[in-house]
Amino acid sequence: MTLTLPTYADVCAAAERLEGHAHRTPVLSSRTADRELGAQLFFKCENLQRVGAFKFRGAFNALARFDARQRAAGVVAYSSGNHAQAVALSASLLGIPATIVMPQDAPASKVAATRGYGATVVLYDRYTEDREQIGRELAQRHGLTLIPPYDHPDVIAGQGTAVKELLEDTGPLDALFVCLGGGGLLSGSALAARALAPGCKVYGVEPEAGNDGQQSFRSGAIVHIDTPQTIADGAQTQHLGQYTFGIIRRDVDDVLTVSDAALVEEMRFFAARMKLVVEPTGCLGLAAARAMKDQLQGKRVGVLISGGNVDMARYAALLAKGA
Amino acid sequence: MTLTLPTYADVCAAAERLEGHAHRTPVLSSRTADRELGAQLFFKCENLQRVGAFKFRGAFNALARFDARQRAAGVVAYSSGNHAQAVALSASLLGIPATIVMPQDAPASKVAATRGYGATVVLYDRYTEDREQIGRELAQRHGLTLIPPYDHPDVIAGQGTAVKELLEDTGPLDALFVCLGGGGLLSGSALAARALAPGCKVYGVEPEAGNDGQQSFRSGAIVHIDTPQTIADGAQTQHLGQYTFGIIRRDVDDVLTVSDAALVEEMRFFAARMKLVVEPTGCLGLAAARAMKDQLQGKRVGVLISGGNVDMARYAALLAKGA
Repeated sequence: MTLTLPTYADVCAAAERLEGHAHRTPVLSSRTADRELGAQLFFKCENLQRVGAFKFRGAFNALARFDARQRAAGVVAYSSGNHAQAVALSASLLGIPATIVMPQDAPASKVAATRGYGATVVLYDRYTEDREQIGRELAQRHGLTLIPPYDHPDVIAGQGTAVKELLEDTGPLDALFVCLGGGGLLSGSALAARALAPGCKVYGVEPEAGNDGQQSFRSGAIVHIDTPQTIADGAQTQHLGQYTFGIIRRDVDDVLTVSDAALVEEMRFFAARMKLVVEPTGCLGLAAARAMKDQLQGKRVGVLISGGNVDMARYAALLAKGA
Repeated sequence: MTLTLPTYADVCAAAERLEGHAHRTPVLSSRTADRELGAQLFFKCENLQRVGAFKFRGAFNALARFDARQRAAGVVAYSSGNHAQAVALSASLLGIPATIVMPQDAPASKVAATRGYGATVVLYDRYTEDREQIGRELAQRHGLTLIPPYDHPDVIAGQGTAVKELLEDTGPLDALFVCLGGGGLLSGSALAARALAPGCKVYGVEPEAGNDGQQSFRSGAIVHIDTPQTIADGAQTQHLGQYTFGIIRRDVDDVLTVSDAALVEEMRFFAARMKLVVEPTGCLGLAAARAMKDQLQGKRVGVLISGGNVDMARYAALLAKGA
């Protein structure tokens, strides 16, 4: 089967759909970061996006493309994280019924927040049940449209609007660092970067413990791994998708990894110096840029901050450890 | 003696001087805050300003107005907080020698940061010495120009540029909440609000423990108090200034107070829901708006977030307590 990969034109169409619905998030700079890395850094702050993460872009774009039948029947998604909130809020804004499949042991606050957006939450046992199967069954039984968290052309195109905005604000960059889980953000970012800044190096960044993307990129075939142990919960995916890998292998320059310890350091940097709450996954880009700073001297560098959704008790503990 | 108070024209002139030097900080919104308060809130994020606080605006504006003799001789300021960093950075950017008088027991990180901007730090014993006198003596002996933290027309005009930007971005507002210490930010904000949004109610907000501003506003004369015990360290001033009080009594609608407990609640709200690190003083505005939400239903409300400089260990402890 040949996949038709989304293109930059799809990113532009997504940007039009998102206009007035997604925040155009600020691009921030930090004199301290610039001095420490010897480069000029531009941070795209998707932690300040609706639902606290870039995921809103892809979810809203996908749902906005539903036809009348799909809208009436509703959407189903499975996620314990930012995608759940993103689909629930997007559905609420578009008047589409939403069903979200979440693990029984998901934090009560996340279940409550998802219900707060008006979604129906279906709980499952993550040790004995398969969420993808539950999602598919719900879709078939009730005619719902399943929106996966990353491997979907409309989701990828939506995520790409963040880097489109970034490059519109900054002009061409020399390098761009994007966190990598399932690859929705990275592949969308690569589409935008190739179109708007052809000379820009595009790097995906994974946690060391979960380097399936790096293995896939370097071997040329999608590698599956067990759920990795890392604090970067947004990058605990086990494999890339068909669409995301197709774009990443073509348009990305390399996939890098960083340690969890480095993520905690950057989380503190963002809090202390940039006054931003960033979730561990959102720290991947800066950690990787700092690790390769020798190659970035004098360059203009974009860093994607993917989100800021972190449990406050855990966040406080991580900040306190290094303070 | 009759003081000549600064005007909105001075705020506009300051905005021109700050162009390209101060960040035009983002104005953020929060669906959750809007729902909780029943109003439409606009947050001006001066925690994302250079040196992490609005203080950069006033300091830079004052130093940018130095004549050749003043520039050559240098500036002196006394502060243990954001004003010290603001003067040090502004002086560094403008090529002006800076001397900052700081208490011996100031956090080492703050002393190091001030020296990092190239300033000369003069330490004093806060229990036996008078920083104002040290500042005046240094000024006289070396011909330095003393820039006080708030009671100076150029400082006030500079601080006013934050609300000028806010109102340019949002259009007219019904109410504006601004934290109040010595009154530099509040008086500058009032100048901008009166010019750009004449119908806007302007509220100053103090910590309960340090309500000298409220007492002064209501009695019509500047009231002095002992240094108040509050976590809002940016509002631990003992009295308003001649300039700031002159504007506040004329242009401000009321001065409100909130408890330290309410500040901690808002600090957590900013972290958990808006992904922003806000120092206790920066939480005064939202805490006051929340307390009077019954009067704000359906209104368009501006909230000034003054800064984000808080010791990380202390910040983590405050977040953890309520998580």
